[in-house]
Amino acid sequence: MLKVGDKVIVPAITPDWGSSEAQMGVPQHSGGCLCGWKFSNTKDGVFGEYFHVNEADANLAKLPEGMDPAVACMLCDMTTTGFHGGELSEVKLGDTVAIIGIGPVGLMAVQGAALLGASRIFAVGSRKHCCEVARNFGATDIIDYHNGPIDQQILKLNGDKPVDRVIIAGGDVNTFAEAVRLVRPGGIIGSVNYLGDGDNIPIPRLDWGVGMSHKHIHGGLTPGGRVRMEKLANLITYGKIHPEMLITHQFEGLEKVEDALMLMKNKPADVIKPIVIIKYNDNLGK
Amino acid sequence: MLKVGDKVIVPAITPDWGSSEAQMGVPQHSGGCLCGWKFSNTKDGVFGEYFHVNEADANLAKLPEGMDPAVACMLCDMTTTGFHGGELSEVKLGDTVAIIGIGPVGLMAVQGAALLGASRIFAVGSRKHCCEVARNFGATDIIDYHNGPIDQQILKLNGDKPVDRVIIAGGDVNTFAEAVRLVRPGGIIGSVNYLGDGDNIPIPRLDWGVGMSHKHIHGGLTPGGRVRMEKLANLITYGKIHPEMLITHQFEGLEKVEDALMLMKNKPADVIKPIVIIKYNDNLGK
Amino acid sequence: MLKVGDKVIVPAITPDWGSSEAQMGVPQHSGGCLCGWKFSNTKDGVFGEYFHVNEADANLAKLPEGMDPAVACMLCDMTTTGFHGGELSEVKLGDTVAIIGIGPVGLMAVQGAALLGASRIFAVGSRKHCCEVARNFGATDIIDYHNGPIDQQILKLNGDKPVDRVIIAGGDVNTFAEAVRLVRPGGIIGSVNYLGDGDNIPIPRLDWGVGMSHKHIHGGLTPGGRVRMEKLANLITYGKIHPEMLITHQFEGLEKVEDALMLMKNKPADVIKPIVIIKYNDNLGK
Amino acid sequence: MLKVGDKVIVPAITPDWGSSEAQMGVPQHSGGCLCGWKFSNTKDGVFGEYFHVNEADANLAKLPEGMDPAVACMLCDMTTTGFHGGELSEVKLGDTVAIIGIGPVGLMAVQGAALLGASRIFAVGSRKHCCEVARNFGATDIIDYHNGPIDQQILKLNGDKPVDRVIIAGGDVNTFAEAVRLVRPGGIIGSVNYLGDGDNIPIPRLDWGVGMSHKHIHGGLTPGGRVRMEKLANLITYGKIHPEMLITHQFEGLEKVEDALMLMKNKPADVIKPIVIIKYNDNLGK
Repeated sequence: MLKVGDKVIVPAITPDWGSSEAQMGVPQHSGGCLCGWKFSNTKDGVFGEYFHVNEADANLAKLPEGMDPAVACMLCDMTTTGFHGGELSEVKLGDTVAIIGIGPVGLMAVQGAALLGASRIFAVGSRKHCCEVARNFGATDIIDYHNGPIDQQILKLNGDKPVDRVIIAGGDVNTFAEAVRLVRPGGIIGSVNYLGDGDNIPIPRLDWGVGMSHKHIHGGLTPGGRVRMEKLANLITYGKIHPEMLITHQFEGLEKVEDALMLMKNKPADVIKPIVIIKYNDNLGK
Repeated sequence: MLKVGDKVIVPAITPDWGSSEAQMGVPQHSGGCLCGWKFSNTKDGVFGEYFHVNEADANLAKLPEGMDPAVACMLCDMTTTGFHGGELSEVKLGDTVAIIGIGPVGLMAVQGAALLGASRIFAVGSRKHCCEVARNFGATDIIDYHNGPIDQQILKLNGDKPVDRVIIAGGDVNTFAEAVRLVRPGGIIGSVNYLGDGDNIPIPRLDWGVGMSHKHIHGGLTPGGRVRMEKLANLITYGKIHPEMLITHQFEGLEKVEDALMLMKNKPADVIKPIVIIKYNDNLGK
Repeated sequence: MLKVGDKVIVPAITPDWGSSEAQMGVPQHSGGCLCGWKFSNTKDGVFGEYFHVNEADANLAKLPEGMDPAVACMLCDMTTTGFHGGELSEVKLGDTVAIIGIGPVGLMAVQGAALLGASRIFAVGSRKHCCEVARNFGATDIIDYHNGPIDQQILKLNGDKPVDRVIIAGGDVNTFAEAVRLVRPGGIIGSVNYLGDGDNIPIPRLDWGVGMSHKHIHGGLTPGGRVRMEKLANLITYGKIHPEMLITHQFEGLEKVEDALMLMKNKPADVIKPIVIIKYNDNLGK
Repeated sequence: MLKVGDKVIVPAITPDWGSSEAQMGVPQHSGGCLCGWKFSNTKDGVFGEYFHVNEADANLAKLPEGMDPAVACMLCDMTTTGFHGGELSEVKLGDTVAIIGIGPVGLMAVQGAALLGASRIFAVGSRKHCCEVARNFGATDIIDYHNGPIDQQILKLNGDKPVDRVIIAGGDVNTFAEAVRLVRPGGIIGSVNYLGDGDNIPIPRLDWGVGMSHKHIHGGLTPGGRVRMEKLANLITYGKIHPEMLITHQFEGLEKVEDALMLMKNKPADVIKPIVIIKYNDNLGK
């Protein structure tokens, strides 16, 4: 049980654990599709001094002794979502993996794929700082889409062989066609990308083996809750992952939230993720 | 080891078992996408007195003592393909399952879903004889697409709740959109349908939870080979399945192959599957 | 949400769904090993007019319209536990399965194995009525341990080939050695038996392939909770399972509980499971 | 297809890929329990200038361009077996893992567990050089059995919480009891240890939750064959693993085989694995 005064992390996804969806194995969809994702969609107040978290003991994670709260913030959504890309595509030891998109989620997908045992990792992106972090996180090849269709570039580099897994962490509805062309029969595409536009995601019939290729298509919202967060936090504590590399800008004070949001909107070349430290109380925060 | 004179079944899929694809777990794609499916695509002679089967000991299955060869023929493709729909959609105990299409493969998908533990089974079809066999195989509700959109009909019958699994064994590229609307978050769509037309399979973005619904999309060619066939044959021997109900017409003699094929092409109301018995040798066949 | 007056089923296992164990995928162990199994171990009052159920909306299952409450009682423990044997041993289409013990749990393991796609099912038992129900539930061979070591009997019947799966639903700590001898490399032993005596379960080193046989050993407490129960109840509603065949004796009134318990203790030849109907209120019960 | 003159790796396990066991998913047991393990048990000649390998195209792996053959030798058995410990225990992102035994196989189990996403890794061993390599491979805590029962030491360090996974890569039949006490309900024990002595492996009944703890017990021979080796080789090529750290001694010439074997038998403090380079032909070897 958590105690008053405990320092905690609030995950992006806070399921209702007794719901039928949670009992069926998808707590992130408790109460309906995507409905465990409360704080971006249905619950208010996360910038406030106090706010309500449902099933607090099950959903708030203890901040490990000595962990920088700024780094811990990278766990709540970026790390867990990026890693879920590797889980959804079921990366196995020695797999070749293509990761499309290396914003903050995609970068954590790179680290997650490496952590799950990938060998060669093709990361698709072009912003210089992101490419550097991608290499630090385990990417072996950086693919710039300015240089031509990414599926053709990757297949050429890979000796004309398709890859074992594709993780989609960027792009749009048309990215899935590239992924289908990239992955081998029996391979898996795992998408954690929010698809904001388009009526349909077109899956190319022939490249998908007239429906019979076993190129499985998975897409899902990250799991959340306390145990997930504490397991990811342990990966930091024991030196296995480095989400602190995502933090490129740090602000202090509630009034800086707007600056930070504008930074994410405008995306100058050097930004990956800004953080805003809000200190309501000397006993909380760092 | 098989011996000369053994009566055998030739599966539709005869993998090259040492191939890299087989080592990766998808023997049906040995040598390339769908390339284990040799006798419909790349190897000739299956109507001949003699023909070559690759890796015969690994790919020919022994006909169990006393089994009618006509019934055994239903295993080679119809039964294994239909059952693979339930495997691809990972039917679990007590799942509600919708099966779209109840031709011979779809009917075996019905029996397969029941065999994997489905509870309520919605079978979509309209031909009278097929509907009767579907009920015999475990379908609890028959949905006729002439009565309106099938997803709306099924959701209404199911108390406005989506189903756990959808098996696609008919329809076309647009069937996947119906399946996505039918299945719950965390559910799985398993397709064994050959998609003959259309550039793309459109997946509706919003119904697919903006990419994050965990409505997984699987599609694949059936496994084949000897062990698969012998396991399915055991299901007949021990009275668990009844593929003999697919056989509506029986012919004798090579010259009747054309009649049988025309029957499949024209599909009169009473046909599910015709069979042609060709006796080259008194020691073979029935 | 349940409403006052709803008729409900109380599962044997009532997890705390937000617990860390539930978040890790084993709600039956919420709060510690076996600790989701509250009503037999730590919570009182199930014979009372009123009693408390933790997380009632998540743990009480609605009795389907028209279902006999006596039959529903067979779901709470016997059916779910028996079926879990098939889940633990991961029965696949066409598998040969040996089921050791055909008391009420073992009988439901027979039906569960059939429901999961087993072909030949060897059921080990000797009481006449149980053997009859086992055959009704899908057993193809009945093995009587009075006739010799069961592993030798089954291997002989199976043409000296080991079986794909073994479900342990009876016997004692020494039963596992028989199971290890019975199962093929790559096969799975799933036990749902309560082991009441003995310091150790001896696994025979050589039969277990000097530790390297991939004869996996699984043992576990059944899952519980509302969704599980409602899925199993659907299997009755749609005619897929028949746990009513377990009920051999029916009593009325609280004062008959002792008679029923003595029946289970003394096990006359004709008993499988007695049921006691207690009517506290005309609006409840049948 | 391999060509004459290709430099290749011979895996310890060379399955018959068409066998029924391979079709069932356990090629390492092709032809019978452990029977894919030919070169240590049933096939001669591996020190010879020429020797026969069954299904050469499927079982010989190409040595990647520029890879030191000495390092490649570490893949054939040590790396693949150690990594199989992590596969058998199904290590997931953020898991705490205890690894019992850090000889060459156990050390690769440490690296494998880290590669599969383990967070805290307890490695049980005492030889100084092995402990150093274990830390290099990702072990966070070294446990010396000279300091008391290893299960008690690890539980204490872990805040009295059991670990998620245990990999057994050393010890004897009694090691499993320690593993059962160490692992949480729902956790998995994966053993890759060759058990040379003892009639039985005793599993402690109470610690195993009277049979109902979901503490699954897996033990198996590593997979082999070409694809497995080439995937592992890619992990070296792309800098993800470092099996070269196992090589502590290097010899040249067939006549040094005995010295190398004696080194493994006597195990001086500084040995992990010796290698013997035999050059039959200038075109082969380094």
